[in-house]
Amino acid sequence: MSAPKKVVLAYSGGLDTSIILKWLQTEYGCEVMTFTADLGQGEELEPARAKAVLLGIDPKNIYIEDVREEFVRDFVFPMFRANALYEGLYLLGTSIARPLIAKRLVEIAALTGADAVAHGATGKGNDQVRFELTAYALNPHIRVIAPWREWDLTSRTKLIEFAENNQIPIAKDKRGEAPFSVDANLLHTSSEGKALENPANEAPSYVYQRTVDPEDAPNTPEMVEITFEKGDAVAINGVAMSPATILTRLNELGGKHGVGRLDLVENRFVGMKSRGIYETPGGTILLEAHRGIEQITLDSGAGHLKDSIMPRYAELIYNGFWYSPEREMLQALIDKSQEHVTGTVRVKLYKGSARTVARWSEHSLYSEKHVTFEEDAGAYDQKDAAGFIKLNALRLKLIATRNERVKKR
Amino acid sequence: MSAPKKVVLAYSGGLDTSIILKWLQTEYGCEVMTFTADLGQGEELEPARAKAVLLGIDPKNIYIEDVREEFVRDFVFPMFRANALYEGLYLLGTSIARPLIAKRLVEIAALTGADAVAHGATGKGNDQVRFELTAYALNPHIRVIAPWREWDLTSRTKLIEFAENNQIPIAKDKRGEAPFSVDANLLHTSSEGKALENPANEAPSYVYQRTVDPEDAPNTPEMVEITFEKGDAVAINGVAMSPATILTRLNELGGKHGVGRLDLVENRFVGMKSRGIYETPGGTILLEAHRGIEQITLDSGAGHLKDSIMPRYAELIYNGFWYSPEREMLQALIDKSQEHVTGTVRVKLYKGSARTVARWSEHSLYSEKHVTFEEDAGAYDQKDAAGFIKLNALRLKLIATRNERVKKR
Amino acid sequence: MSAPKKVVLAYSGGLDTSIILKWLQTEYGCEVMTFTADLGQGEELEPARAKAVLLGIDPKNIYIEDVREEFVRDFVFPMFRANALYEGLYLLGTSIARPLIAKRLVEIAALTGADAVAHGATGKGNDQVRFELTAYALNPHIRVIAPWREWDLTSRTKLIEFAENNQIPIAKDKRGEAPFSVDANLLHTSSEGKALENPANEAPSYVYQRTVDPEDAPNTPEMVEITFEKGDAVAINGVAMSPATILTRLNELGGKHGVGRLDLVENRFVGMKSRGIYETPGGTILLEAHRGIEQITLDSGAGHLKDSIMPRYAELIYNGFWYSPEREMLQALIDKSQEHVTGTVRVKLYKGSARTVARWSEHSLYSEKHVTFEEDAGAYDQKDAAGFIKLNALRLKLIATRNERVKKR
Amino acid sequence: MSAPKKVVLAYSGGLDTSIILKWLQTEYGCEVMTFTADLGQGEELEPARAKAVLLGIDPKNIYIEDVREEFVRDFVFPMFRANALYEGLYLLGTSIARPLIAKRLVEIAALTGADAVAHGATGKGNDQVRFELTAYALNPHIRVIAPWREWDLTSRTKLIEFAENNQIPIAKDKRGEAPFSVDANLLHTSSEGKALENPANEAPSYVYQRTVDPEDAPNTPEMVEITFEKGDAVAINGVAMSPATILTRLNELGGKHGVGRLDLVENRFVGMKSRGIYETPGGTILLEAHRGIEQITLDSGAGHLKDSIMPRYAELIYNGFWYSPEREMLQALIDKSQEHVTGTVRVKLYKGSARTVARWSEHSLYSEKHVTFEEDAGAYDQKDAAGFIKLNALRLKLIATRNERVKKR
Repeated sequence: MSAPKKVVLAYSGGLDTSIILKWLQTEYGCEVMTFTADLGQGEELEPARAKAVLLGIDPKNIYIEDVREEFVRDFVFPMFRANALYEGLYLLGTSIARPLIAKRLVEIAALTGADAVAHGATGKGNDQVRFELTAYALNPHIRVIAPWREWDLTSRTKLIEFAENNQIPIAKDKRGEAPFSVDANLLHTSSEGKALENPANEAPSYVYQRTVDPEDAPNTPEMVEITFEKGDAVAINGVAMSPATILTRLNELGGKHGVGRLDLVENRFVGMKSRGIYETPGGTILLEAHRGIEQITLDSGAGHLKDSIMPRYAELIYNGFWYSPEREMLQALIDKSQEHVTGTVRVKLYKGSARTVARWSEHSLYSEKHVTFEEDAGAYDQKDAAGFIKLNALRLKLIATRNERVKKR
Repeated sequence: MSAPKKVVLAYSGGLDTSIILKWLQTEYGCEVMTFTADLGQGEELEPARAKAVLLGIDPKNIYIEDVREEFVRDFVFPMFRANALYEGLYLLGTSIARPLIAKRLVEIAALTGADAVAHGATGKGNDQVRFELTAYALNPHIRVIAPWREWDLTSRTKLIEFAENNQIPIAKDKRGEAPFSVDANLLHTSSEGKALENPANEAPSYVYQRTVDPEDAPNTPEMVEITFEKGDAVAINGVAMSPATILTRLNELGGKHGVGRLDLVENRFVGMKSRGIYETPGGTILLEAHRGIEQITLDSGAGHLKDSIMPRYAELIYNGFWYSPEREMLQALIDKSQEHVTGTVRVKLYKGSARTVARWSEHSLYSEKHVTFEEDAGAYDQKDAAGFIKLNALRLKLIATRNERVKKR
Repeated sequence: MSAPKKVVLAYSGGLDTSIILKWLQTEYGCEVMTFTADLGQGEELEPARAKAVLLGIDPKNIYIEDVREEFVRDFVFPMFRANALYEGLYLLGTSIARPLIAKRLVEIAALTGADAVAHGATGKGNDQVRFELTAYALNPHIRVIAPWREWDLTSRTKLIEFAENNQIPIAKDKRGEAPFSVDANLLHTSSEGKALENPANEAPSYVYQRTVDPEDAPNTPEMVEITFEKGDAVAINGVAMSPATILTRLNELGGKHGVGRLDLVENRFVGMKSRGIYETPGGTILLEAHRGIEQITLDSGAGHLKDSIMPRYAELIYNGFWYSPEREMLQALIDKSQEHVTGTVRVKLYKGSARTVARWSEHSLYSEKHVTFEEDAGAYDQKDAAGFIKLNALRLKLIATRNERVKKR
Repeated sequence: MSAPKKVVLAYSGGLDTSIILKWLQTEYGCEVMTFTADLGQGEELEPARAKAVLLGIDPKNIYIEDVREEFVRDFVFPMFRANALYEGLYLLGTSIARPLIAKRLVEIAALTGADAVAHGATGKGNDQVRFELTAYALNPHIRVIAPWREWDLTSRTKLIEFAENNQIPIAKDKRGEAPFSVDANLLHTSSEGKALENPANEAPSYVYQRTVDPEDAPNTPEMVEITFEKGDAVAINGVAMSPATILTRLNELGGKHGVGRLDLVENRFVGMKSRGIYETPGGTILLEAHRGIEQITLDSGAGHLKDSIMPRYAELIYNGFWYSPEREMLQALIDKSQEHVTGTVRVKLYKGSARTVARWSEHSLYSEKHVTFEEDAGAYDQKDAAGFIKLNALRLKLIATRNERVKKR
């Protein structure tokens, strides 16, 4: 295969993607453009620009964008409409960010006539899959370069050596190996690898970066009221906010109360298990609240159908199939269900937990008249239950009768 | 329909089932037998015997049984193998007890030649359905009497009047209406009705009976290690115990740390929503631990399949279909998955939360060799990922190509 | 409950609904309005008008409508987008017509201030459920009267007597009991009951009304080409037609070639099994063709997701939940999948069978370049398959390794 | 990677696998053992032995086995218990045979100390995946060699040249390229490739090898009665037979009447679509009959659950995951459902179709007493239906009421 001419690189400004930048230039002799996104990872982006310039990138080839609102509005919120949890527990914080980054890479490539995109994900993880499936789904002609699967810089020593040989500045704390690897965005921070690899060992407390230890959280609970419209959060404590502002505010609240820590061994799409420590403070509150508002605004038919397809939906996102017909079909189903998911939930935050304690809505399906123990006002005739049970039991009776008959013989 | 001759009544010894006892005698003139089960509800059963005798039941017609081990071994544990949660949150504490009670009613009826069974569930709830579907599934010829759907004792006043007219002793605190209604067994305590009916109001703290308020829980976390064999808990902190003993011990631990409180608005099978306050201290720890051990012993194929059928399995139990072909089919699937779910999980209990922090097993599928960031020892060839992604992307590329082509025209 | 004032009756003009008409007048003393729909059942509607007038209905209270286009466009076609089959075989011909009739009853009631609707379905079947669920879903305040569940006209003799006493004309062939019961509309004809009740007996040939016996069908096959746009049939043999015209034309073709006969024992929603003989000539061809066009225009992700939810979708329609949130959610998912289901299918009709033999489309995803045995032109690198298989096998290898290890010990 | 020492080759005796045999010897210099299975493909196996000897294989290294009974008993029948159809139509005839062949390869390798197995499937199809996933699942240490993905014999010319250079006899009709490619076993014959590649072209009649053209089938229908026990066919027309004998007999009947032809465009696991012509004469009859007996012996709960998981089960088999935890879990579910699937079905064969016309069983759940239009004998109280419908409608009414309320505001 001939060399690419122009590559758009997902560039963080860190050591690894700086090495990739140089490697692309030297290995392929191609023009490199960088894309750095503010996804709410909590780092300044301007240093990435300076570093790219230092590494010889033409300033007009440096793309730096704040995509936080797009991230929350078009990726995080649609996913939360589904109450998505991968393997019962994981809020998909990394998974949901990758399609957005890959989409922008492909779009910038189209805009600038680049014939390839590149990313810094390794050959063992899920992120390579998520980047590449997205890229191919959006542009079937694009070429994707994954240096970690190609090069021979297979040890820390070799990487550092390459950096030194190529005048790539190395921060002091990057010379040695990090004790674990981190990914962060507005939705979560994940940590994995090295010190965390043995799932029989508790994660050391220094791993957590975004939430206080529940033991250090305030001794007094705090209430927060979240208002939803058609399934999406629109206000906190009565104050309307943009999607990214809402998630930011919930992150502050959750972080303060030690909410959203998760120690998980999960199944990667590429076939092995891995252990991760996740911190999703705002997302954990949001999921709890979304379930709370659905409890009164969704009927059982809608709710149970959503529940039944959720694991598949979550798996698709985890595996990198955000831009696939089946994810879009499931999204259509989920979005259809959210038309009346409007109302307010009060969540209590305390020492690591977030629990719904109250919810109300003009769209509520809850009917005190029907459920009350008080003498009936005609809303519900208890005798109807007799027929309901009789017909639900009919097939069970027929089975029992058959089994008796067969046994006798 | 002619009157029943002999009825086995699910009898708690409380006022309501005592009224039913008398009503059956007077309304149908039939012989009444009582069945009182110790399901771990935390009440003495001998008073129920005394009261039954007082109400004229022949002592040989009084059945009192400790079914706690059967309850946990044959109902609770099989259900926990599935990680069952109804509507994402409810641990099914009441639902799972009803089939056992109904089964014993039917068995006692068979033993004693009774032609009917009776229960004290109202016509608005799920329990009537669970009792009756079980009864009909196990004996298609049985007659089930549900006095609450039949009689005209439709107010507290009428009930008290009936009790007084029939020499049924009334505890002082039962004269007025209870502020809410309670069901308890070894797995959980549920409270609903009256004071809890408005889901916009927080549940008052006096509702909780089995767990301390997380704010009052110890300031120091406590670790507990739970060992599983083939999906069932068999030991706590290294000490082997019977199923009911394990659940009892976990209840103590959970209760002490305020674990397992849930405020939920759920969808009843009979069509309306209701709000319940659940306390499932031991069950909450058990679910967390079971998930923890599955994380390292179940592969993704098995785990994702289990996740995908779980909502349906939980719905079946909630709706009363424990004794149905489809529940038994799903159980066969679930049990098949548990052959290697063996190992130990450490759970941290603190102020209302129970979190897995470590897990280990001889049956573990976790392979540090495969996942490590360290230089490869040949276990995994990163280049394989390229082909894996290419073929997973192929259909997405074909779609993108098609869409381009169609658009152009 | 007080008597209804004004009732809209689903009126066929036949003996049974004429008896209902009179019974409503005499039993409830209410004003009766009749609604008679042309759903393509192949009967003249004007005699129904004349008979209603004869039975004393004010001509302005007689509603007769041709709803064939609405039926096919808004009910049949959306359902066929899902390839819906109940219990693997039944094309839902009766089930899909009931919601439309009930919808019109409720709409006419709203228009005319009627407070009730009535239908002629018995208490044993599915149709009562379908009529009533629809009615309640569209107007929660409506009253539904189901005379068959209320009256005491429980034998043929009593019905005839009532008719005679009320001057209801009785066709000669209606005096005795029909050998079986029939329902027909543009999609199908169903026959059940009496002579067909024993599923061990073959259905007599006189039962079939709409399709020739395959043995009597032409000895020469006939080809038909059906063109689809976004999942719906729009043309036959290149000639564009309206939805109802397409189905009518396919019925002629199918009927002539003996296509679409089905002898089925199915599970009714009300709990028992029943045996039906169905003739769905056009629908059977349409299903085959729709599958044919999906084969080349839907990718596996979309197709497999559709397949997996189809049984639930079909069950919802069968059980009467057309107007339910979950059916609408599934419809959103299905409709989303049909955006490119555009193209033409050639189906061969011969002696009872309809088989796709060719299909083509500008929207095709089929790529001869990828599949060909010919030497590759670079579209597909066979070596990618090695990595694809390796990673798909990884978890299986880890399981096998674990099992070995555990066994040894 | 070092060269394998000893390889077990899936050997048909044909030109392609003979070339592979020689290539393995010359490329890897390893000892080759051959395994040839009689799966009912209808070819003599002794010529394969002679040819292997001719190519220099030590006679003790030649394994030839009749695995037809194992094939039908342990693979085909379990699959038919599920009514498995891939993409709604395909009976999985090739898919289900591969795991058995791969299992024997691995077993022979274990027996003889071979360190590798080899197969003749190409890098574009599903069979490579099925062979290899099975091999790895059964022996995680085995090496699998897939010459088609490795060698440079990428054209017919090169293959013939290699054969000539290596003294491999070439049948005259193998010099040119076959007009299409065939796979056959007791369950089916599939044809694909070359002449069949364009799905817009009808398959030429000479493609069909195992079934007569329906137009040439007998003008008189033929009835066949199939008896099942616990879901498996055990007798034909009252005569008990072994599994393979039953399938053989049904193949004769189906082939004679032109039953079981299918022209399909399907989605391969490796990502592209392909077009295949399948002939599954006996299997088509068997599926129809199995559904027929399930109609009266399975209740709706069991049947609908089976239907809902079937697409996933079929996909697993198609994709090569026979030996996976999730297939085994689904099998446990399916097998559990078959305990009472016992009885007899009469199927009518005529000019390409096989249709159930009658079925009976001591295990039947069909109750004429419940379904009859005759005056009730107390088996079913029509009034029960009123309560049943009321409670099923309750949530729909609550939705409608809510929607009204919200709209008004």
